[in-house]
Amino acid sequence: MLLLKKYRMADPYFPKKEIRNILRDYKNILEGNGLLSMGKNVINFEKEFTKYIGCKFSNVTASCTGALELTLKALNISYNDEVIVPCQTFFATASAVIRNNAIPVFCNVDKNFSIDFQNLKSLVTRKTKAIIVVHFAGLIQENIFEIKEFCVRNNLFLIEDCAHALGSSINNIKAGNIGDAGCFSFYSTKNLTTGEGGMITSNSHRFSNFVRSLKLRGIKINSSKEIFVNIGTNQRLTEFQAILGLYQLKRVQSIIKKRNILAKRYDFNFRKIKILELLDSNIKYNNINSYWRYILRFKKKINRNFLKKSLKIYGIDIDWPYFPLLHKQPILKKFYKKNYLNTSELYASKFICLPMHNNLSLQDIDFISKKLIYILNKNY
Amino acid sequence: MLLLKKYRMADPYFPKKEIRNILRDYKNILEGNGLLSMGKNVINFEKEFTKYIGCKFSNVTASCTGALELTLKALNISYNDEVIVPCQTFFATASAVIRNNAIPVFCNVDKNFSIDFQNLKSLVTRKTKAIIVVHFAGLIQENIFEIKEFCVRNNLFLIEDCAHALGSSINNIKAGNIGDAGCFSFYSTKNLTTGEGGMITSNSHRFSNFVRSLKLRGIKINSSKEIFVNIGTNQRLTEFQAILGLYQLKRVQSIIKKRNILAKRYDFNFRKIKILELLDSNIKYNNINSYWRYILRFKKKINRNFLKKSLKIYGIDIDWPYFPLLHKQPILKKFYKKNYLNTSELYASKFICLPMHNNLSLQDIDFISKKLIYILNKNY
Repeated sequence: MLLLKKYRMADPYFPKKEIRNILRDYKNILEGNGLLSMGKNVINFEKEFTKYIGCKFSNVTASCTGALELTLKALNISYNDEVIVPCQTFFATASAVIRNNAIPVFCNVDKNFSIDFQNLKSLVTRKTKAIIVVHFAGLIQENIFEIKEFCVRNNLFLIEDCAHALGSSINNIKAGNIGDAGCFSFYSTKNLTTGEGGMITSNSHRFSNFVRSLKLRGIKINSSKEIFVNIGTNQRLTEFQAILGLYQLKRVQSIIKKRNILAKRYDFNFRKIKILELLDSNIKYNNINSYWRYILRFKKKINRNFLKKSLKIYGIDIDWPYFPLLHKQPILKKFYKKNYLNTSELYASKFICLPMHNNLSLQDIDFISKKLIYILNKNY
Repeated sequence: MLLLKKYRMADPYFPKKEIRNILRDYKNILEGNGLLSMGKNVINFEKEFTKYIGCKFSNVTASCTGALELTLKALNISYNDEVIVPCQTFFATASAVIRNNAIPVFCNVDKNFSIDFQNLKSLVTRKTKAIIVVHFAGLIQENIFEIKEFCVRNNLFLIEDCAHALGSSINNIKAGNIGDAGCFSFYSTKNLTTGEGGMITSNSHRFSNFVRSLKLRGIKINSSKEIFVNIGTNQRLTEFQAILGLYQLKRVQSIIKKRNILAKRYDFNFRKIKILELLDSNIKYNNINSYWRYILRFKKKINRNFLKKSLKIYGIDIDWPYFPLLHKQPILKKFYKKNYLNTSELYASKFICLPMHNNLSLQDIDFISKKLIYILNKNY
């Protein structure tokens, strides 16, 4: 029996030489020549990450969910404060708000799945304390600096949810270095992975110190005694995970480059397919997309489940995050009172994501494209 | 120059053969033949842990702090509820209560550093919802079943903070299988370590499912879609960590046995030292102490910092967790209103812990004992 090649949505990849180095470091720790947690590798990972992003401070966390929760707490988001979030994002963007006893306010997304600035402006009230933008699938929205200006003018915190956007930049400024804080994810499907893990970037010494205290349960930092001055939690990462992160960070530029090459090939393959609409191209402005996902938009609604089943026959996975949208999630419904997210619902119903990871070759991209085009031509 | 041997308080230890097996498993994962997170090893770790404790359900978490936070939430502890905790325990026992918007009520400890049942009874009000007992240093208090009965009678949840007590038992019932839930720590100083990590044990299917949802951000479990029905967080453990846990679990009985042999030797060495008072002996009742720490009590107050400095000369570490006691921590002070914890303060001022881990030999124990006795004889 011939084994079908699988084209997954994501697939973490470590080169042979890197695996040898990682295992050598792990062996050292297991033999007692290094700590399992709270050692030098976490410190180095934070230092190197800071350099890469070009910001001033980085605090590693146990997950991006944890990063978002701590960031909001460190910005003093609390009871009855409102935080505006796009309605098309992962659940954690909103749950982090509620975990801080605050209220998530759902905002429309535009056709690139970035937060809709016009809608955003209309949602600001006296209770609004912060805005979370999501660099969806890796794309930083063109008007991000206008949003930033708006936030400064209105005394609102701007938080970047960079879960998709490690390696993205705009005008040579990296995702995570634009707002008051950036929250990254190193979950196993991400461009850089530590299995589970996250990072909080910022340029404020005070904020960073607050985060550092909170991730160590609220400890008084820089004290030799175990004195607690805040109510925090444990958001630490093990040394094993930090080592993984450190090695990948060394080759992160080549990871992003490869993703861009694959994405351009998809773009090229689909350029003439009438039912499809490509995402606003990178060259429109000085933007590097990390391409955590490759998005294809359809000009009309199509049966995505049929498409999924049809492609599965060839071993090809597709998906369409995030379904349902936040305001349709059972536990979040109550926060959505007026009926204004219809455009987002429409956009969200007309796109799919194709496999995108460093184990794919241009031949793989061509194979996936060919099969998809074949099915589309036959059915639409 | 002769390098002085170091006698640390704790020291994680992995046998050579185990390291080989761990690294083989890690290599497999890194080469793509296994998941980095949410894979079979976490499931197996939970399964084997359940078997070992003898309970019905186990849910792995990212830390014991996380385990305590989720446990309280899954028991619906919320605004203005009171939870009674011993005043001598790690900060997280109380911070987990506050993280759930509830109020920690500090209780005295007895001379074995277990929660004081008489004081506990006097602290129960109409707002009290739960009691957290800490099996301090590994000792399960003799009257734990009386406390359990009291909780049942008064409709209070009994939570076991088992951070110290993996492998402890009483009447052949293991720590974590007595109350409504047990919370374990796998931090790197613990009897079994995953670097960072924790576990929640229970015998309630409903509670366990609630915990499982909460650790996956509130997801609807057993659904194929990403539907969220609770507000939870991310408390997952990586596969790397689960593998560490699984291998140690296979030899956990020998780990506990070794600790007991070392502790008995300490007991023997100190039996005739007049200023010292040994902890209530294990043979007094049908109890196995995990001996996370070996505790020495003094009959009078002594200068512990002097003792610490004097022993450091010989490479010997000592400490006295937890200092300050909870009600003296800056951020917790406000929860302590009446002045009733003086006996705990006195007990807490008259003890030290000696090095205790699997890298120590009986010769090491004798060396440490000899040096301590020498200093005590000379000064007291």
